[in-house]
Amino acid sequence: MSDPVILFAARPERWAIYEAPLRRALAKAGVSDAGLTLEAAPSDVDYIVYAPNSTVQDFTPYTRLKAVLNLWAGVEQVVGNDTLTVPLARMVDVGLTDGMVEWCVGHVLRHHLGMDDHIHGQDGVWRNGKVPPLARHRKVVVFGLGELGRAVAQALVPLGFDVSGWARSEKQIESVRCFAGPQGLDGALQRAEIAVLLLPDTPATTDLFDAARLARMPKGAVLINPGRGPLIDDAALLAALDRGHIGHATLDVFREEPLPPEHPYWGHPSVTVTPHIASETRPDTASEVIAENIRRGEAGLPFVHLVDRKAGY
Amino acid sequence: MSDPVILFAARPERWAIYEAPLRRALAKAGVSDAGLTLEAAPSDVDYIVYAPNSTVQDFTPYTRLKAVLNLWAGVEQVVGNDTLTVPLARMVDVGLTDGMVEWCVGHVLRHHLGMDDHIHGQDGVWRNGKVPPLARHRKVVVFGLGELGRAVAQALVPLGFDVSGWARSEKQIESVRCFAGPQGLDGALQRAEIAVLLLPDTPATTDLFDAARLARMPKGAVLINPGRGPLIDDAALLAALDRGHIGHATLDVFREEPLPPEHPYWGHPSVTVTPHIASETRPDTASEVIAENIRRGEAGLPFVHLVDRKAGY
Repeated sequence: MSDPVILFAARPERWAIYEAPLRRALAKAGVSDAGLTLEAAPSDVDYIVYAPNSTVQDFTPYTRLKAVLNLWAGVEQVVGNDTLTVPLARMVDVGLTDGMVEWCVGHVLRHHLGMDDHIHGQDGVWRNGKVPPLARHRKVVVFGLGELGRAVAQALVPLGFDVSGWARSEKQIESVRCFAGPQGLDGALQRAEIAVLLLPDTPATTDLFDAARLARMPKGAVLINPGRGPLIDDAALLAALDRGHIGHATLDVFREEPLPPEHPYWGHPSVTVTPHIASETRPDTASEVIAENIRRGEAGLPFVHLVDRKAGY
Repeated sequence: MSDPVILFAARPERWAIYEAPLRRALAKAGVSDAGLTLEAAPSDVDYIVYAPNSTVQDFTPYTRLKAVLNLWAGVEQVVGNDTLTVPLARMVDVGLTDGMVEWCVGHVLRHHLGMDDHIHGQDGVWRNGKVPPLARHRKVVVFGLGELGRAVAQALVPLGFDVSGWARSEKQIESVRCFAGPQGLDGALQRAEIAVLLLPDTPATTDLFDAARLARMPKGAVLINPGRGPLIDDAALLAALDRGHIGHATLDVFREEPLPPEHPYWGHPSVTVTPHIASETRPDTASEVIAENIRRGEAGLPFVHLVDRKAGY
């Protein structure tokens, strides 16, 4: 059997970051890295290591392709591509997951504790009147219980938070009250003193947080969105923030990125914009995920982390 | 046996907060609350529920006293009182411990993630260049491994942090590298990218963080002090902050509280002052600790949470 041809199809600057970790990970997985390349005749390619913003958008010429291995957790820019007929795997990177857990738990605690009052208010006035409740009296809801949402919910539990989750389908997570489907959404929204959005971007989740859904959240609720920009109806959120029904929004992802400087989110006193930094794929750990799927493909084993093309993630 | 006389000796406004929870907790512990009072002839008093800032400073007239049950975790204002010859118990309140864990983990994550850059920098500029390391590559050291320090260290472990601790005597905490005594201090300081100070205030810990000790910490280290004000040599810390060797200090406790408005900490760009809010005793859970010790006293059992008068805590 000849060495598999592995095409690296991402923006060129990524190659500098990924080449060495990928070669290391392939060697560790017992797969030859001889075929790892930036250029190959499409009809020779066995695997594509893929970033959805790469120049490869038509998969038709890749006639012997066995799988597309996404470098990103999000697949919304590729899942609807009709020219892609082979298995598509999402990135499930422990580094990405751990970074996301750290960011989410940090911002949940920030809002729970009311840190901003003190980070902003260094004016010499000793204001010790506001004591936050203990975490056991703070209801946090994680919307989306895939790899990331599940990990975030599980990390909030030992800190004592009253944690719930919502997902399209039924889930079981220890010490987390799980709501499911359209019929479970109201119950989840009503509990969401702090909401963490980790849903995929699909037609069913677009504008999920619209005026009516935001109105069902408790007064003063905090929205934390490290998931996907289109989950939120931006105009509805701004209106809910203006009238104080939503207390604060910490937003890491947006319909347009970078968020344009004139966007009202930037200047809003109850919004914290962060520049899509909640988490990112880490080359070392991500390369191991890619290598493992190539090892599996070469051994005739089923791929892991496959995208459900119908569900869209 | 007659009902024990339990004198509540704290500032008057505390009685309004504590009376009902104390009566509930005593009933739950099977102890009569008939003798719980704000006033009694000293020679009739069996127990004093005590705040060190109360008017009771001379214990000599309390001739039948069985124990002094502190409402506060800190005992430095009472431990040296020579007129106190009966057992003295510290407050070990699960509510206080949990609140402290939440505050400490929150501020460790805040500094780990560099949140302040974004909380302050809502100026329309998309700055996504700085990616923090994962927690597994961030060294946090908890100084002081009593009830509070141990709980904080243990809460940081599942988030992935590289956690160490330092205490006067040898400790064993799973997944935490424990340093002990004067000979272990340098090793602990050298690892402290983020230091959390939860040491008691004793002659041995006064100014522990002086110029020489601060200089041993890594460049850019962050100091988080929810412990006691005198642990830090304030002038040395300000100097270390000014020259950038210490990157930031988040300080909740001070030699003088409220911190005077003219104190240089307030205006320093690398200091966050919080007004002694990291945690406080919670009436419900604290009352149960007090009631349990009175139950033990009445049953002739040893008290729990006794202060080592010689060590000073």
